[in-house]
Amino acid sequence: MGELAYVITMSAVAVSAITGVLEAGRKPIDLFGVVLVALTSALGGGTIRDLLLERPVFWVADQTYLAAAVAAGVATFMLVRLVRLPANLFLVPDALGLALFTVIGTQVALANGAPWFVASFLGVVTGVFGGVLRDILCNEVPLVFAGELYATASWAGAMVFIGLLQAGIAGSVASLLAMAVLFLTRIAAIHWHLTLPSFAAKE
Amino acid sequence: MGELAYVITMSAVAVSAITGVLEAGRKPIDLFGVVLVALTSALGGGTIRDLLLERPVFWVADQTYLAAAVAAGVATFMLVRLVRLPANLFLVPDALGLALFTVIGTQVALANGAPWFVASFLGVVTGVFGGVLRDILCNEVPLVFAGELYATASWAGAMVFIGLLQAGIAGSVASLLAMAVLFLTRIAAIHWHLTLPSFAAKE
Amino acid sequence: MGELAYVITMSAVAVSAITGVLEAGRKPIDLFGVVLVALTSALGGGTIRDLLLERPVFWVADQTYLAAAVAAGVATFMLVRLVRLPANLFLVPDALGLALFTVIGTQVALANGAPWFVASFLGVVTGVFGGVLRDILCNEVPLVFAGELYATASWAGAMVFIGLLQAGIAGSVASLLAMAVLFLTRIAAIHWHLTLPSFAAKE
Repeated sequence: MGELAYVITMSAVAVSAITGVLEAGRKPIDLFGVVLVALTSALGGGTIRDLLLERPVFWVADQTYLAAAVAAGVATFMLVRLVRLPANLFLVPDALGLALFTVIGTQVALANGAPWFVASFLGVVTGVFGGVLRDILCNEVPLVFAGELYATASWAGAMVFIGLLQAGIAGSVASLLAMAVLFLTRIAAIHWHLTLPSFAAKE
Repeated sequence: MGELAYVITMSAVAVSAITGVLEAGRKPIDLFGVVLVALTSALGGGTIRDLLLERPVFWVADQTYLAAAVAAGVATFMLVRLVRLPANLFLVPDALGLALFTVIGTQVALANGAPWFVASFLGVVTGVFGGVLRDILCNEVPLVFAGELYATASWAGAMVFIGLLQAGIAGSVASLLAMAVLFLTRIAAIHWHLTLPSFAAKE
Repeated sequence: MGELAYVITMSAVAVSAITGVLEAGRKPIDLFGVVLVALTSALGGGTIRDLLLERPVFWVADQTYLAAAVAAGVATFMLVRLVRLPANLFLVPDALGLALFTVIGTQVALANGAPWFVASFLGVVTGVFGGVLRDILCNEVPLVFAGELYATASWAGAMVFIGLLQAGIAGSVASLLAMAVLFLTRIAAIHWHLTLPSFAAKE
């Protein structure tokens, strides 16, 4: 992994930790619990991917990931007690993190021999299951399953990435294009309130 | 695995995916979320078994499992928006799936060197933890822990299977007999409302 | 592992199973479900640790752990239906179990090559995630994230253990000292109602 990619990944880990703190903060959870929720949010998706692929869990050997998530979590906790952060401040960084995690997850799965359909699903797992575990710890129905396209945008990005690779496009170009599609889908979904049908539509 | 066993396993995966959709449908979850819940319901138990036994996760190498679960999930979602399915339509297929998953899970655990008591527990994990994960995602107390015998029927079947193997019965005969005992226990439990004691009985 | 350590570990497993039963008992869960919650409570933390470290899961090869947890769970279930146990009866054994699980978990992580910060976190995972999984199964916000210092006491003990090892103290001495610090921190926290700040403090 190049140095730029490493820095970007760390930023995505930190942003996911921050969203974990913001969710945990609405619950009767203390500072240490908030940090554990932040860690789960930041590292959970990639952890499940690595376990399913039988490869070493990415944050166990390199403790920079854990340190970045803890630092972001504690800093956010302190900040939120001082000032009221606007709820939508992190929507754009979160969409960037979703794009990055999904495409890296898909790439890792393909590199470990997963067939394409499984790889696209493991990309989604990497992108969204940190948030799913965060919501489970906070005793909520996972937010990523509702509202504006989120898991769907993640899957669309994974499929675009796989399609471009299949068409013979170089990996670096394919990953940038797929991240752009995923990011813009998510931002467009927020802006125009694009949602998938749900059962509720029947009534 | 013979061709018949493969087809039966796929059917059990599909039925578990359907029960996932039916549960998720009562929640504010969109189509993609419903499919993820269906996947968890169908693949979750065997996944936990494989992780605990340190063997390759069964659906990562062969994407037919994932495809079957997704197809069953999407089809059920569409159907449920058109017609109201009777809630008890899937009780019999679900009992068949429980029997199959439990006995296969026990068999896999024994083949991987697990001692018999651990193997019986891993059979139950294979049979019921897909449903447990489904209920956790949907923010419910797991249904398999209450009502008519479910996890208990699963464990009884696993123990019968191990007992028959211990008595020298051939594996294929033992597994069919154990599945029959498990299936009939579950159906009898539904019919006569057989339940285990719970704390509530104290009041 | 020496014979004494083995006996102590079994006792800690049994105590964790008992706390699982006491929590599950307030839910509409039947006997078998209660036993499964007890197992998750007793074995869950060490299981997650072993999966993250890619080592064999400790209770899969040696079924004494599973048997001890099941026996403790069933016995507690029976007892609770006969007499009303005081809620705080298990606070001291539970604190002992927390101390033991945390230090063993940290030790195992270091022995498997985890860097110190990761090892301290895996110690906490071993100590508290059985309780976290128990609360998730029972559909509660994890108790270990709130109230008197619990996860925090666990982490403090892990850090003391690592610090003493770093200072050249022998492993057996360091582990006893760290367990003592952890145990006394937890007991003092209960006695003087020591808590970490939480978001609620803002109001």
